[in-house]
Amino acid sequence: MSANARILCPTLKQRLMTAEKAAELIPAGANVGMSGFTGAGYPKVVPGALAERIRKLNAREGSEPFRINVWTGASTAPELDGVLAEVDGIEMRLPFQSDPICRQRINNGTMDYVDLHLSEVSQYAWSGFLGKMDIALIEVAGIREDGSLIPSSSIGNNKTWIEQADKIILEVNSKQNIKLEGMHDVYYGTALPPDRKPIMLTDPADRIGEFYFECPPEKVIAVVESDAADRNSPFKASDETSQKIAQHILDFFEREIELGRLPKELLPIQSGVGNIPNAVLEGLDAGPFKNLTAFTEVIQDGMLKMLKSGTLSVASATAFSLSPEGIKEFDENIDLYRDKIILRQQDISNHPELARRLGIIAMNGMIECDIYGNVNSTHIMGTRMMNGIGGSGDFARNGYLSIFVSPSIAKDGAISSIVPMVSHVDHTEHDVKVIVTEQGLADLRGLSPRQRAREIINHCAHPDFRPALHDYFERALHSGRGMHTPHLLGEALSWHQRYEEEGQM
Amino acid sequence: MSANARILCPTLKQRLMTAEKAAELIPAGANVGMSGFTGAGYPKVVPGALAERIRKLNAREGSEPFRINVWTGASTAPELDGVLAEVDGIEMRLPFQSDPICRQRINNGTMDYVDLHLSEVSQYAWSGFLGKMDIALIEVAGIREDGSLIPSSSIGNNKTWIEQADKIILEVNSKQNIKLEGMHDVYYGTALPPDRKPIMLTDPADRIGEFYFECPPEKVIAVVESDAADRNSPFKASDETSQKIAQHILDFFEREIELGRLPKELLPIQSGVGNIPNAVLEGLDAGPFKNLTAFTEVIQDGMLKMLKSGTLSVASATAFSLSPEGIKEFDENIDLYRDKIILRQQDISNHPELARRLGIIAMNGMIECDIYGNVNSTHIMGTRMMNGIGGSGDFARNGYLSIFVSPSIAKDGAISSIVPMVSHVDHTEHDVKVIVTEQGLADLRGLSPRQRAREIINHCAHPDFRPALHDYFERALHSGRGMHTPHLLGEALSWHQRYEEEGQM
Ligand SMILES: CC(C)(COP(=O)(O)OP(=O)(O)OC[C@H]1O[C@@H](n2cnc3c(N)ncnc32)[C@H](O)[C@@H]1OP(=O)(O)O)[C@@H](O)C(=O)NCCC(=O)NCCS
Ligand SMILES: CC(C)(COP(=O)(O)OP(=O)(O)OC[C@H]1O[C@@H](n2cnc3c(N)ncnc32)[C@H](O)[C@@H]1OP(=O)(O)O)[C@@H](O)C(=O)NCCC(=O)NCCS
Repeated sequence: MSANARILCPTLKQRLMTAEKAAELIPAGANVGMSGFTGAGYPKVVPGALAERIRKLNAREGSEPFRINVWTGASTAPELDGVLAEVDGIEMRLPFQSDPICRQRINNGTMDYVDLHLSEVSQYAWSGFLGKMDIALIEVAGIREDGSLIPSSSIGNNKTWIEQADKIILEVNSKQNIKLEGMHDVYYGTALPPDRKPIMLTDPADRIGEFYFECPPEKVIAVVESDAADRNSPFKASDETSQKIAQHILDFFEREIELGRLPKELLPIQSGVGNIPNAVLEGLDAGPFKNLTAFTEVIQDGMLKMLKSGTLSVASATAFSLSPEGIKEFDENIDLYRDKIILRQQDISNHPELARRLGIIAMNGMIECDIYGNVNSTHIMGTRMMNGIGGSGDFARNGYLSIFVSPSIAKDGAISSIVPMVSHVDHTEHDVKVIVTEQGLADLRGLSPRQRAREIINHCAHPDFRPALHDYFERALHSGRGMHTPHLLGEALSWHQRYEEEGQM
Repeated sequence: MSANARILCPTLKQRLMTAEKAAELIPAGANVGMSGFTGAGYPKVVPGALAERIRKLNAREGSEPFRINVWTGASTAPELDGVLAEVDGIEMRLPFQSDPICRQRINNGTMDYVDLHLSEVSQYAWSGFLGKMDIALIEVAGIREDGSLIPSSSIGNNKTWIEQADKIILEVNSKQNIKLEGMHDVYYGTALPPDRKPIMLTDPADRIGEFYFECPPEKVIAVVESDAADRNSPFKASDETSQKIAQHILDFFEREIELGRLPKELLPIQSGVGNIPNAVLEGLDAGPFKNLTAFTEVIQDGMLKMLKSGTLSVASATAFSLSPEGIKEFDENIDLYRDKIILRQQDISNHPELARRLGIIAMNGMIECDIYGNVNSTHIMGTRMMNGIGGSGDFARNGYLSIFVSPSIAKDGAISSIVPMVSHVDHTEHDVKVIVTEQGLADLRGLSPRQRAREIINHCAHPDFRPALHDYFERALHSGRGMHTPHLLGEALSWHQRYEEEGQM
């Protein structure tokens, strides 16, 4: 079905135009709310046309640089973040990105990046201190006769952008499976305080909203057709390191169930994207588990398999993040998945109220953690942004169990992921319950900092770095300084410094 | 009315005994859940008798050291933490303390301290990984005929301790105003996931629970009488520094109201204890505000005044923290306060679901913050525990606005509270919205790290330290390292190191 055939509202059909024409409607300095979450559901043609326009404008001598502020759900893809960053078209970016060119600009100081908890973005936009949203640029799977919109492969902040923007540009993408219709749950019950009400969701399978976005046709200034697939990363078969990490987590779950501290269906799972989380999902699928649930940000390949096998009964998320094979599997068997997947806006998928109530088991990657259990998810050597905190803080703080995972070493052993003191803190000692590397698992619950240090060094550090970590800890213990969290201030960050100077921790 | 006259349940009256006898019922190694929150409602006689018993036992040659694990609501008083720490009777302490002798033991390594978010303690205890609670030792204002209990001047974790403990020791304190009866709201709707339900509270004035603790009489192994007042700190008249900080906050509120970003009744206020928060409350009371509400941990002197004047219509908390004059005022005018104050258990007063829904304005003290907006609330020079994180994380992460306050310098100017990099992180850059010192206010919302640095240095740092902070930041910017969060790793903690070595940052 062509994109054109998916535009059923006569008024909006009149606004059909090329991506180039639509891009001309975006003024310099605009705050633009774009769709897109983890490489799914982002606009695919207008950003490129806009980048081209910016490139031309900025090439003219003496012209004021043309830049916009880009707000999204989370990360997008080269066709959005990449092309706009390439032409230096982004003044400020929020709330999350993972694009190589964006990252370069953030780290060379030519782009401002505001790294936010994903659950908080829409309330920030509503409360007004981020400024007025000028334009929303949203990919949809179709436009209904009454002007309401069929969401695409992610929801993210789209509901908020559509409500908040003065003007709206829609991209209707005919590559998105039209059977996505009915899989979304758009909740219109949110409000700013003091008018907030309880969110009456008590199970990941609960539906509390609508299938469609409401959208006042008079705000829509352009409709553009597109026909390009979401650009997701190919699926890598899990490696030995990931499998070992997964096994430690599975053993931990089994022990907790035996001890009566977790139900045998576990609790709703939240899982970051990537190699290790996918290995954990594979492990769960191979194990004795049945009727698990997921309340998470993204649906990964592993979750499709689990839904098919019955390991997982339902998965609630705000976006897909499937490999090309995953997309194929999903498209071919969409009738099987339709009833078992619910896509929600990110202020609901990541909501503190729901994370706490449902008792989420949060599993996320980390860059490094220190011997006291502080986790760095965002900064390389304390200064360079990797991606951002994303939803990890929403789930780690308010969930039931927060598990952070990483290989114990990086860059072929030049870097230890367990360090004396992290170079940046995203998750404090108060929020981190379990640390896992391929070496083992450290259960930090109920431990004091000194107890945690021994647990982490002995169970998680790589043997090559273990003696140096013990040595640091012992010398800190005998330094005559405070013994609650023993540190040698002059040495605490020396591992990172050594890496920067010598290429080896 | 004597304590004896407050014990109406015949079965429990039979368990009356001396504090010494009751203390003998507590075995070595026990996990003991005690009442007490911010110097209110803690047991006042059994801990002293237990300390005396421990002192004697430990003096006997060759004896195994007698120690227990002490779990409370939050901080208590010298009669509990002080006496037990004095005799080295505490193996492990959670979740919060502020006692000088405890602090000394924590920092010399002779006591383990587990510093937890106050909203999470009861779910930790329920989930079982902290171990079995052997004994609950709870102060109450009275025992009713059916064995149910009239809570005292704090609730804290008492509901959970009474439910979780195998055995219960009650202290009936006749000094507590018997008219406290009816001021509490004990909620019995909590559960572990997957059985949690929405908490149907949408206004700080809402009542969702019972006046009394349910308590199975067969679990009560001792009832002890006491007649001692809560030991709270005297009220200090606010100084110039506090008044300046308060004024910056009041100006900020007025601007936010003007801009339509806060309602004119503000949003429910949470306020840490101490000099500065009390000055803010005084300022609010002197200003144009009417019908404000508080949803907080503790009722301070300032809140009584505001309730009396009508500035505040209702205050919800888990404990009182009044000066001796405050207690007198409260006791003399209790009929006026009875309907305007609600005491709840701390898993409700600090609940993430409620903090988010109500949109709390959280105002808490800090030890230091860095130029990027990371806040240290707990550690002196990175190693020594001050008090603990308390509820500050519950409110800062999930509330609507998080404000952290501190004088810009400490120790007569030897220390700058604004540093290049904090020596410990309790509240990350993602959670800290506003920083205030007597120098001014930094509004960090929507700013990138580099923008935050300029805002904090220019508005909050003391003029004596401002040039050195600018210098650090500028050199970090030109270091050739990452420019998202520019740092000089070799110098980042040098201010703290210099203070440790030379007594001056
Ligand atoms: C932390 C995070 C970057 C780890 O990602 P990952 O893909 O699992 O990790 P990898 O092991 O592949 O490492 C990614 C890169 O960081 C590098 N790295 C890993 N640990 C490192 C360390 N301690 N120091 C320096 N670099 C490190 C790797 O070498 C790799 O670099 P490369 O791309 O140049 O090869 C990722 O989980 C993340 O962005 N988390 C924050 C957001 C989040 O948690 N979202 C979850 C909610 S969906
Ligand atoms: C951070 C905290 C300790 C500040 O307390 P306060 O009473 O407002 O602060 P003060 O300015 O009186 O400082 C307390 C002590 O710390 C010292 N101090 C303050 N800033 C310091 C710094 N940057 N470096 C070293 N010491 C510092 C002060 O000199 C003082 O020491 P002293 O007692 O030896 O004189 C306190 O707010 C706290 O414990 N917060 C964490 C818990 C919390 O937020 N609870 C709120 C929920 S109710």
